[in-house]
Amino acid sequence: MNRFLPLLALSALSVSSAVAEGPALSERDRDAVGRLTEKALADDTAWTVLESLTTEVGPRLGGSEAEARAREWGAAKMKELGFKNVRIETFSMPAWSRIAESASIVTPFPQALHVTAIGNSISTPEGGVTGEVVRFGTLTALQQAPLKGLEGKIVFVDEQMTRTQDGSGYGVAVAKRSEAAYEAAKRGALAAVIRSVGTDSHRNPHTGMMRVKEGEAAAPAAALSNPDADQLSRAISLAKKPVVMTLNLQTARTESAPGGNVVGEIPGRTDEMIVIGGHLDSWDLGTGAVDDGAGIAITLAAAKLIDEMKGKPGRTIRVVMWGAEEVGLFGAKDYAERHKGELSSHVLAAESDFGAGRIWSMQTRFGEKSLPNAALFAEALRPLGVGPGDNEASGGADVSPLRAAGVPVIDLNQDGTDYFDLHHTPDDTLDKVSPDDLRQNVAAWAVMLYLSTEIKGGFRE
Amino acid sequence: MNRFLPLLALSALSVSSAVAEGPALSERDRDAVGRLTEKALADDTAWTVLESLTTEVGPRLGGSEAEARAREWGAAKMKELGFKNVRIETFSMPAWSRIAESASIVTPFPQALHVTAIGNSISTPEGGVTGEVVRFGTLTALQQAPLKGLEGKIVFVDEQMTRTQDGSGYGVAVAKRSEAAYEAAKRGALAAVIRSVGTDSHRNPHTGMMRVKEGEAAAPAAALSNPDADQLSRAISLAKKPVVMTLNLQTARTESAPGGNVVGEIPGRTDEMIVIGGHLDSWDLGTGAVDDGAGIAITLAAAKLIDEMKGKPGRTIRVVMWGAEEVGLFGAKDYAERHKGELSSHVLAAESDFGAGRIWSMQTRFGEKSLPNAALFAEALRPLGVGPGDNEASGGADVSPLRAAGVPVIDLNQDGTDYFDLHHTPDDTLDKVSPDDLRQNVAAWAVMLYLSTEIKGGFRE
Repeated sequence: MNRFLPLLALSALSVSSAVAEGPALSERDRDAVGRLTEKALADDTAWTVLESLTTEVGPRLGGSEAEARAREWGAAKMKELGFKNVRIETFSMPAWSRIAESASIVTPFPQALHVTAIGNSISTPEGGVTGEVVRFGTLTALQQAPLKGLEGKIVFVDEQMTRTQDGSGYGVAVAKRSEAAYEAAKRGALAAVIRSVGTDSHRNPHTGMMRVKEGEAAAPAAALSNPDADQLSRAISLAKKPVVMTLNLQTARTESAPGGNVVGEIPGRTDEMIVIGGHLDSWDLGTGAVDDGAGIAITLAAAKLIDEMKGKPGRTIRVVMWGAEEVGLFGAKDYAERHKGELSSHVLAAESDFGAGRIWSMQTRFGEKSLPNAALFAEALRPLGVGPGDNEASGGADVSPLRAAGVPVIDLNQDGTDYFDLHHTPDDTLDKVSPDDLRQNVAAWAVMLYLSTEIKGGFRE
Repeated sequence: MNRFLPLLALSALSVSSAVAEGPALSERDRDAVGRLTEKALADDTAWTVLESLTTEVGPRLGGSEAEARAREWGAAKMKELGFKNVRIETFSMPAWSRIAESASIVTPFPQALHVTAIGNSISTPEGGVTGEVVRFGTLTALQQAPLKGLEGKIVFVDEQMTRTQDGSGYGVAVAKRSEAAYEAAKRGALAAVIRSVGTDSHRNPHTGMMRVKEGEAAAPAAALSNPDADQLSRAISLAKKPVVMTLNLQTARTESAPGGNVVGEIPGRTDEMIVIGGHLDSWDLGTGAVDDGAGIAITLAAAKLIDEMKGKPGRTIRVVMWGAEEVGLFGAKDYAERHKGELSSHVLAAESDFGAGRIWSMQTRFGEKSLPNAALFAEALRPLGVGPGDNEASGGADVSPLRAAGVPVIDLNQDGTDYFDLHHTPDDTLDKVSPDDLRQNVAAWAVMLYLSTEIKGGFRE
């Protein structure tokens, strides 16, 4: 926490310079923000919540029995923290699960490979499929390959992902995970394996969903860890004959599994509402600390800090633990549909779903007349090291149906340089979260919440 | 390679200051060392050898069919590189193998744990054992526990390992891997699990041998990855009732499996011999790049550089790829026994078996009259960033029987700060080796070899 002291000392300076230039925080708000920041940076509620979720529930795949336990945990935790109107909003959803997975090079260099099924992959026949590996350096190269010539082969898409602070390498790299199964099936291939969508060099493959295209044939599809993709690629280079591999994936799918969102509130002086949260489900391989236990922990802890202030907040804060995000945004869709009648009272929405790295920039998506209010957020967040951004915020995946319905959104952007080292792997565990960085996140969210509930007029116009 | 240029430029300076103080390299030797260093720092033989071994053979557990393939690979590689008198010296050995392994918390927080059997562990009954976990913070705490009270329980030794440049944290931490199975069995426990002997935070458990104590009862024993040990420890802290886990280990053991060393030579002008090498076997989980493919690659490449010099070296260089080091030094013992008649002509011995980090210090174990020769090694190695050390070298595990028989030894100590992040895990793969650091290793070994073959009088007296 010490590292924030110089920043806090600077805040008076930056605030006064802003005063000269345009709208500025009132002295009352400035004081409140300062006190809230100081308190947040000494608060370990988020850490305690995150430790509890990742240890007591652990992995919690959307639609699984573990996710149901997570909902019970979430409702109990909200009540324990003093939230009101706590409830679980249930729905039915299709669910996929992993039963067994293995791969190996059969010839000429026999050895095991570390592999994991891509979410929604079909099973191979029992015992797996065996075939010559045909490597493509990019998804585009596979998409441009002739529709004949891969029958009985195993397609290997070896495209690399780029490491970036804002995570922008993901959008490009994830296309192979979405599409490889379909491109392989179109060409009669036995299966598709991809280099993991990830930036690390550990033998933990990255899972994640493929695109769901009802009625279109898909081959069994799996991701190799980056070192295993290196190895398969080297084997192909060094071998003087075809490299043959075997891939065994056993998975299951059911059309009707229980799903749900957990909802709780810090009631305000009006029915106008700020909706924030994270997603409660995680992939099954890790314990979902950075994806997205951190988002649950940060938003709960920030809302609780507002609740601890004197008097009720100007607007109600609703925290949602969205269910089944990873496997198809089922919670987000249910929330938007179930609450469509009250979306006009949704003043602002935001999700924390990019780990627990330090927040380094903010973006808004406000109406043009409300842009001076965006400057107030920027002024209040600057002492925490958060720079101002544009008005093109996404709000987060679970917020996208609300954004589409016209609800203003805000993004507090985390440093994602290391995020894709861990994303969707067994390595997404509590030890990867820095308690200091987590507190900075809580402080930024608490400041954002305070202003959201107090600023007059909203952000829609 | 560029980073060496300033060091090379400094070498003239350090050499001249040494001249004033004591024995110094001759101008001829100094020139030879300079040329050798320059050539080594531009040479990729070691990388090519390491890539070939880790890709074309991959994991190669002592006594396995894969290790037999590694021997064929080794003999072919030596011949390809121009070594003479290449042969495989075979022997018979007991062998252990891993068939299946899994663990999970059963209650109150059900979830899977990442675990691997400790080498030589017996199997659990099929389907595993299930019992309450009893945590001990250190091995000593377990050793001091009463002999009654752990019946039907699973012992968990949660001792942490310290990260150090010289690897000295290992000696302390490894005791739990050696002893936990026996301490658990003495107390009637169902099994022992330990926190991995390793310094990383990835979900790759570290395997390695337990102590072999014939006739003494041992419980099934396994290592949890560090994040899984954290998780089990947290579960015990947060649970309001006993934590129950299940552990399933299926392993196999045979008393008679084929083993062997691969031996090749660069013949010199005399029968006196410098014996160097690394161990050919690896643990089964990784591809043995740092442990000890690097040692094989470095010593082969360094010897080849001497072979490429004008004329024969003063002494013969024998490179040994020792077999089955990890599982009980079977190759080292066979070599010492088989060659006991010629040990008097073994002038010096050394093994590279601590990865591929930059060499930062050297040690010798020479006779007292030969210590001025140790100063010559120090002088020649200083430009590569290698500092002088004491006269207490170990020589390496495979060299220990030779050292015990009176053969002088030398250590070129690698930076092991990160070594125990990878050691005995699936993550011991080629991408963890830096080509630059590998070349610095080859340069230091080539310089050491050159002096070893040329210095008059040897090192024994």
